[in-house]
Amino acid sequence: MKLLYEDDVEKIALGAAVLGSGGGGDPHLGKLMAIQAIKEHGPVRLITADELAADDLVFPSAAMGAPVVMLEKIPNGSEPKRAIQALESYLGKKATAIISIEAGGINSCIPIYTAACLGLPLVDGDGMGRAFPELTMMSFGIGGLPASPMVVCDEKGNLVIINAINNQWAETLARAVTVASGLFTQIGIYVMSGDDVKHFAIKNTISLAAKIGAYLIHESGNPVNGLINLVGGYILFEGKITAVRRDLTTGFIRGTVRLEGLDSYEEHVLSIDFQNENLIARLDDNPIAMVPDLITVLDRERGVPILTEGLKYGQRTVVIGIPCDPFWRTEGALKYVNPHYFKYDLEYTAIEEIMKGIS
Amino acid sequence: MKLLYEDDVEKIALGAAVLGSGGGGDPHLGKLMAIQAIKEHGPVRLITADELAADDLVFPSAAMGAPVVMLEKIPNGSEPKRAIQALESYLGKKATAIISIEAGGINSCIPIYTAACLGLPLVDGDGMGRAFPELTMMSFGIGGLPASPMVVCDEKGNLVIINAINNQWAETLARAVTVASGLFTQIGIYVMSGDDVKHFAIKNTISLAAKIGAYLIHESGNPVNGLINLVGGYILFEGKITAVRRDLTTGFIRGTVRLEGLDSYEEHVLSIDFQNENLIARLDDNPIAMVPDLITVLDRERGVPILTEGLKYGQRTVVIGIPCDPFWRTEGALKYVNPHYFKYDLEYTAIEEIMKGIS
Repeated sequence: MKLLYEDDVEKIALGAAVLGSGGGGDPHLGKLMAIQAIKEHGPVRLITADELAADDLVFPSAAMGAPVVMLEKIPNGSEPKRAIQALESYLGKKATAIISIEAGGINSCIPIYTAACLGLPLVDGDGMGRAFPELTMMSFGIGGLPASPMVVCDEKGNLVIINAINNQWAETLARAVTVASGLFTQIGIYVMSGDDVKHFAIKNTISLAAKIGAYLIHESGNPVNGLINLVGGYILFEGKITAVRRDLTTGFIRGTVRLEGLDSYEEHVLSIDFQNENLIARLDDNPIAMVPDLITVLDRERGVPILTEGLKYGQRTVVIGIPCDPFWRTEGALKYVNPHYFKYDLEYTAIEEIMKGIS
Repeated sequence: MKLLYEDDVEKIALGAAVLGSGGGGDPHLGKLMAIQAIKEHGPVRLITADELAADDLVFPSAAMGAPVVMLEKIPNGSEPKRAIQALESYLGKKATAIISIEAGGINSCIPIYTAACLGLPLVDGDGMGRAFPELTMMSFGIGGLPASPMVVCDEKGNLVIINAINNQWAETLARAVTVASGLFTQIGIYVMSGDDVKHFAIKNTISLAAKIGAYLIHESGNPVNGLINLVGGYILFEGKITAVRRDLTTGFIRGTVRLEGLDSYEEHVLSIDFQNENLIARLDDNPIAMVPDLITVLDRERGVPILTEGLKYGQRTVVIGIPCDPFWRTEGALKYVNPHYFKYDLEYTAIEEIMKGIS
């Protein structure tokens, strides 16, 4: 067990944004919420999956929707807790620990906030090891756990309990509720036992995020090469953003960003398609990294990640690629998150393979 | 108390379709369900609001969405019962009676089905005295009762419990769930006490529907004039349908029907705008009946009502108008259902007033 203090929240938020592959949402407000909750309730105990008892009851706590909306439609602070408590009351059982559904900005902070408010430990792990846009794309569900019953809360006080026949329907119905209530909600979902977490969670992602965040905060020079070493990734491109196209109407941020090369990448163009998260990076129209591998856009000077909602014309960036957790390359998992699932006519090729061909 | 048998279902369905103002859905499948349930479980006790005890617990049972979809997306039969039972279990209380939310085809039959399946009495009354397209347009809610907690079930087995902050949000969230799950669901909503029913329900609409239905079934000649006498209505037009425009994408059936006059109406045109129910009838572009008064299109030969989803090119029809229940003309109620609410720049004028001006 380790204790998470205010400065750990900063590190985790920053590191999770690198792992978030452009998604997971701007952590700013979530970070403030988590820091405030730790100030009020004391540090959060971070425990490993191994420390859980078989019959522990672990509740994932998360935000759903287009996180960019949160910047204007501010949570009232009670939603994450209400979502968990409504699930507890519906199930007639109490949560004994909280876990993240994904490694991504806001959804790395919200579980810290919820754990602090409820006085519960946070499990070091999550359901993705990165961020993904849909509730079906979690190791918990792919492993066979039901997403239902799940709870969706909004900042106005509306509360919806969903008992879906399968996880795809949980996603469809929760997405409809999220869009109707203004594109951003807080959820409770995939309630599981300590043993379930041991079997199905992707482990130690909170401490990995903290390590990445600490490196970026403390490194004084250009941190990109060091970061690449830390995460075992690749530099894909250096360039300036010359166009961004976004559409929010489906409850996701969908779009494309176009970058023109700088220095050794001059005369080259990189485009990245995203749906909350970066999905496919193409160098001069040739795919060089694709989902489920991680594609993250960093500020060229400071190495801090730029999320898909923060992409703007003129930003000078380094784009990196990171191999995904091996779980996603298993046959059972890959079908839920490969380029075909996102409607691309592309066979998944691991980033290590593509890079071998290029160098 | 009166007992409802199979043949009463036929009468109620037919009469409620007249009161349904074009909405409430094709009763055919609901009728079959109710008749089958009475065969299996015995007749349903129809009780007046006066027969309820103050602490009776009355559950409205209804279908939501675009009823035309039900003709292809057939209920599995368990949804209405499941909706009530999920509400009972959520509230930790048992229903002692069932009531209709509206007088309209399917939503007059579903409550009979539910009451028969659960062995509960049906209250003679409803929340509209006609049909309306939205959950906020009920005497229960306008009187001050909360729609929440409400339950939405679909034929696949998905079940959603909505706890909304107000009735407009209950409508918005339930509509979103209904659209996402394929445009047709079964709901439980506005759970109320026996006293609430006495205060807020529109009374005796089931027996009125049965009376209208019996008249239409037994009358051998042209029944329109007799029907007009029975309901205190007016003949607005006789004509042939020459165009129908419909749109289903919002979870309602919205559209317009155009009729060209026959006999004494020759050279005249009637158009009717609808949103599930008929809203505004215009004779040569002049409004002659408007919501909340009832506008019903009848088959010219047989006097049977044609619902908005059944309107077809070439049908020869009589269009009648019926004054709405006096409740809808009170200031507190009219604002929820007057033409302005449906985005028409029209001041509500009672059909009796308009008819005085014409004759």
